[in-house]
Amino acid sequence: MTKEEYMNIALTLAKSTIGQTSPNPSVGAVVVKDGRIVGMGSHLRAGLAHAEVIAIEQAGDDAIGADVYVTLEPCSHHGKTPPCADLLIEHQVKRVYIACVDPNPSVAGEGIKKLKQAGIEVEVGIREAEALAINKSFFFYMQHKRPYVTLKAAMTLDGKTATKTGDSKWITGEAARKDVHKQRAIHDAIMVGVNTVQQDNPQLTTRLPQGGKNPIRIILDTQLSINQASNVLQDKEAPTWIVCGSKVNVEAFANAFPHITVLQQSTPTIRLPELLDKLGELDIQSLYVEGGSTVHGSFVKENLFQACHWYIAPTLLGGIDAKTVVGGRSPENMIDATQLTIASMEQIGSDIKVIAYPKQEVE
Amino acid sequence: MTKEEYMNIALTLAKSTIGQTSPNPSVGAVVVKDGRIVGMGSHLRAGLAHAEVIAIEQAGDDAIGADVYVTLEPCSHHGKTPPCADLLIEHQVKRVYIACVDPNPSVAGEGIKKLKQAGIEVEVGIREAEALAINKSFFFYMQHKRPYVTLKAAMTLDGKTATKTGDSKWITGEAARKDVHKQRAIHDAIMVGVNTVQQDNPQLTTRLPQGGKNPIRIILDTQLSINQASNVLQDKEAPTWIVCGSKVNVEAFANAFPHITVLQQSTPTIRLPELLDKLGELDIQSLYVEGGSTVHGSFVKENLFQACHWYIAPTLLGGIDAKTVVGGRSPENMIDATQLTIASMEQIGSDIKVIAYPKQEVE
Repeated sequence: MTKEEYMNIALTLAKSTIGQTSPNPSVGAVVVKDGRIVGMGSHLRAGLAHAEVIAIEQAGDDAIGADVYVTLEPCSHHGKTPPCADLLIEHQVKRVYIACVDPNPSVAGEGIKKLKQAGIEVEVGIREAEALAINKSFFFYMQHKRPYVTLKAAMTLDGKTATKTGDSKWITGEAARKDVHKQRAIHDAIMVGVNTVQQDNPQLTTRLPQGGKNPIRIILDTQLSINQASNVLQDKEAPTWIVCGSKVNVEAFANAFPHITVLQQSTPTIRLPELLDKLGELDIQSLYVEGGSTVHGSFVKENLFQACHWYIAPTLLGGIDAKTVVGGRSPENMIDATQLTIASMEQIGSDIKVIAYPKQEVE
Repeated sequence: MTKEEYMNIALTLAKSTIGQTSPNPSVGAVVVKDGRIVGMGSHLRAGLAHAEVIAIEQAGDDAIGADVYVTLEPCSHHGKTPPCADLLIEHQVKRVYIACVDPNPSVAGEGIKKLKQAGIEVEVGIREAEALAINKSFFFYMQHKRPYVTLKAAMTLDGKTATKTGDSKWITGEAARKDVHKQRAIHDAIMVGVNTVQQDNPQLTTRLPQGGKNPIRIILDTQLSINQASNVLQDKEAPTWIVCGSKVNVEAFANAFPHITVLQQSTPTIRLPELLDKLGELDIQSLYVEGGSTVHGSFVKENLFQACHWYIAPTLLGGIDAKTVVGGRSPENMIDATQLTIASMEQIGSDIKVIAYPKQEVE
């Protein structure tokens, strides 16, 4: 097998754990000796062993003189586990192939340096693009200390998300809705505006045939006016965080719902930059914003998103009085629209899924 | 070559004239004798020779005992030219391969019957789907006596066609706009609402590097309030038809613009079904509706379209006060949205083009 093929196996190991390792990145490792795989591993959950540790332990004495393929630069610092770079040196591996450098400031090239100083051959950059994509939220978070924000919308072909009466069931088909549940499972948190809660009373949980991790549910509710019978307050299926403004009295609410986290802002209205900073402090690396119209309008206007997942149904609703997918106030000129780059489009069931990134973002 | 390959040549001949033969269909013919092509022809323009006539004339005496491939059933009636079925019989061809039957009530199987009665072998249905697609407007028109209506829209990824100030330049890129000009060239007529004329003062002509036929420009203007300095009234680049309601006095306008056709309706407001009947009487077989919001809203609400060509720009405008692509009034429930089937999606430049058909329509 080629270097790329061994690295693909390591990438598959890493990919399979996206969403379950936060705040750690998803990493896979493969140890190869004399053309045979002698160890494989994947980091499964924060607090458990790193991918390299699992793979090296499996290899045992075969690690000596072996080649190691790892999707992310081995760590060089003492965290919850000892540095993986040290482990590779102790086991006297011969070569280490690394897909991408760790942007974490406490690693960032130090792991590679350590390995090289110990006389181990190191090659960096094999399948780098795939490796970066696997941990894009982690990398973004490391750099900005804010969650990687994905705006998700399900709309008709004419850009509507609900009728004039607020009815929105269902815009897209079952296959698209299942895809949304997969996305929920791999995000740390999901966000909606309180209008969406009042209108649809959603559960905002991951519902997949074989299960899936629930994201934290974050509700933007400046006035703390959420219906107290809402599923997100009552069902205890997943943590719920309510974000409200500085002017409301949260005491009665906090007493009534001790299991709900209230994030009261220091300003009367919710300011997204400050909120994203706060969510970063609270270890939210990936945020899936499901709208509605006003919430999307704010994220678009303030340019505070890194990706768009757009599900477009093959239907035309019509109506200047229907709900539009991105609300708020229109800019004066078309040239002030937020420019995106289409990354992919595919049919999911009878719907279209478009993934796009803001043009200035490098993906 | 196979039957299908010969028919493909005939289809290419037919396809190359889409839009320039109206009210006649686009037809191609190939004459084959002993494995050699001895004649080829395409109907170029109403009033000129039919495809079979050109191909048979080119074949001369080689037509005797030859195979003829024709994309549409040969005509059996005396129109502007004598029946092509008779011509094939006179020239003693051996076999006739036909892609599809002519839905024109004065042909509709009669041509095939005539050929068979004369002892000519006939096979129908080779590459039928492609042949039907080439003349879909003609076939629809023959069946319904109304134009085949294509709704065209250029919108942002959030369904907007203009900012709150009405600015819409430009939503899509150059490649998408060129594609629109190609569509104009192959349609008999193009339609916009008067708001679009007042806002953008468009030319509504075909502007392609190598030229292209201009469609008739139809403006919906109930109150006959069009700006008299508009390009469509002044430039004489293409015929312009103004559709207005029964309550307005058209005399002064008609005197001022003798080169403009005024289609005054019998009702105070414009009723689309009646208007489409009228356009059918006036030989408009294909209509390209370029909006805006209100016009699209009416066509969608009344379900009076056969295709949607949607150009989606990779931009997010935002704004409940921006112009939405399909206006009018929203239905009560999402289930009342018009259901479509996605036929294709492709990237054109940096934009997305989606072609969709109403679900009940057979394409």
